[in-house]
Amino acid sequence: MSDITRINPGARMSQASIHNGMIYLSGQVGTRGASTAQQTRDMLDKVDAILQANGSSKSRILQAVVWLSDIADFAEMNAVYDAWIDPENPPCRACGEARLASAELKVEIIVTAALG
Amino acid sequence: MSDITRINPGARMSQASIHNGMIYLSGQVGTRGASTAQQTRDMLDKVDAILQANGSSKSRILQAVVWLSDIADFAEMNAVYDAWIDPENPPCRACGEARLASAELKVEIIVTAALG
Amino acid sequence: MSDITRINPGARMSQASIHNGMIYLSGQVGTRGASTAQQTRDMLDKVDAILQANGSSKSRILQAVVWLSDIADFAEMNAVYDAWIDPENPPCRACGEARLASAELKVEIIVTAALG
Repeated sequence: MSDITRINPGARMSQASIHNGMIYLSGQVGTRGASTAQQTRDMLDKVDAILQANGSSKSRILQAVVWLSDIADFAEMNAVYDAWIDPENPPCRACGEARLASAELKVEIIVTAALG
Repeated sequence: MSDITRINPGARMSQASIHNGMIYLSGQVGTRGASTAQQTRDMLDKVDAILQANGSSKSRILQAVVWLSDIADFAEMNAVYDAWIDPENPPCRACGEARLASAELKVEIIVTAALG
Repeated sequence: MSDITRINPGARMSQASIHNGMIYLSGQVGTRGASTAQQTRDMLDKVDAILQANGSSKSRILQAVVWLSDIADFAEMNAVYDAWIDPENPPCRACGEARLASAELKVEIIVTAALG
């Protein structure tokens, strides 16, 4: 049995990979065409769901990288993001602009967290 | 002796760093000026070579971040990428647009993998 | 007591997170409005300070991702970066273009390092 567990493996990627007490997530996005705030909510709901289903949580995130398709949405994304994090355990974060796989996607997050 | 092994260290970066059962790669690119499909092939060949030379493989990749200099090349890159991954072990992945060190570079990948 | 230590936690992020012998940094930037060379120096000074305050150092960096708001600044950033790294221990690195949180920011770095 492998020491790497693939969560929801697909033809292109797994939703998450678990190894040695760590969980690595694929880029998570929200609902195409929705507002930046709504896409941020959707995206963070997905992160919560994946982490909780696999024995981690947002309180255990070590590093998050956020991409915005338009950096002008920085404040709109942060209003949702800042309310979401565990204030006792703020993850490390970086945020930059990158156009995403679909023009209807406004935000994407890459998460690395500890299990447990 | 250090517990960090640097693979092909250069004046700017090492090709890979090994520590505690993990291998971290520098951004890998293909042949400048070639098509996106060809650059993707070249880049993934380099990833294979580095991982295999150091006791890992594409089946052990935990997380990959792909940058395209033009997100319009998404489908062309994916046609090569999807055929390359180990279908039994799809790595986590995120893909966004970022212009690269040279205007002749169309795609770059950052890989984190487990040894063993 | 948690097995994750948050360094300088704020309302949005921690400056660094420590877990299982590793230290993960938030994106570090320099002084807004300064030249790319100066912002690179400032940013790397911050990386040095954070790593040294927490039992690591630039010689223990495993992976660094550099974002430039304008890839035309690649050579200017590298002149500072190349002189900064420990030539005995060059970290892995990738560099791409991404507009940053403020139009006055020219460069940002995301660092993952080993403690010890």
